[in-house]
Amino acid sequence: MQPLIIQSLTEEERAHVLPMLRSAQWVEVGGRDAIYKEFVFKDFNQAFGFMSRVALRAEKMDHHPEWFNVYNKVQITLSTHDCGGLSQRDVSLATFIDQVSLM
Amino acid sequence: MQPLIIQSLTEEERAHVLPMLRSAQWVEVGGRDAIYKEFVFKDFNQAFGFMSRVALRAEKMDHHPEWFNVYNKVQITLSTHDCGGLSQRDVSLATFIDQVSLM
Repeated sequence: MQPLIIQSLTEEERAHVLPMLRSAQWVEVGGRDAIYKEFVFKDFNQAFGFMSRVALRAEKMDHHPEWFNVYNKVQITLSTHDCGGLSQRDVSLATFIDQVSLM
Repeated sequence: MQPLIIQSLTEEERAHVLPMLRSAQWVEVGGRDAIYKEFVFKDFNQAFGFMSRVALRAEKMDHHPEWFNVYNKVQITLSTHDCGGLSQRDVSLATFIDQVSLM
């Protein structure tokens, strides 16, 4: 099997997706090529339920978030280790995360 | 129903439980009355499986961790908001977390 090569976003792709992510309240992290967003839920049940749905998707994609949780709050940072920065996988996972956060 | 008052650990309790927690690699957090430990698993499946078991217990206890996860790593801080520091609940949750981490 060929190893899967994960490409960083091209300049053209960045110009397209970064404004879209910013408008969904994802912010670019200082000092590294990554995006960050904080989610606040009603309580821990809602927050961990959200995390569980994201975890299943992340595992299926083999692309995992860096995340912090305390009670009803979940802070998520996305970046792609294999290419040292943002890739299409981050865009895809961010989009899924946003959808799940609204359920 | 009487509100549940959560008491900080007494000096006597601290003298008893802190050495026990230290010997289980929990460390005291600088600048606040809290304990911290890092757990490293084989992969994300193992790490999030562990988190899920801890989450169920935390919810049942109504006592929730502050935790960070990236891939196979889980960093946990325990403290009790209601009493502004360590309580018996943190000792109890730490003990459970250690048991689950070995399963």
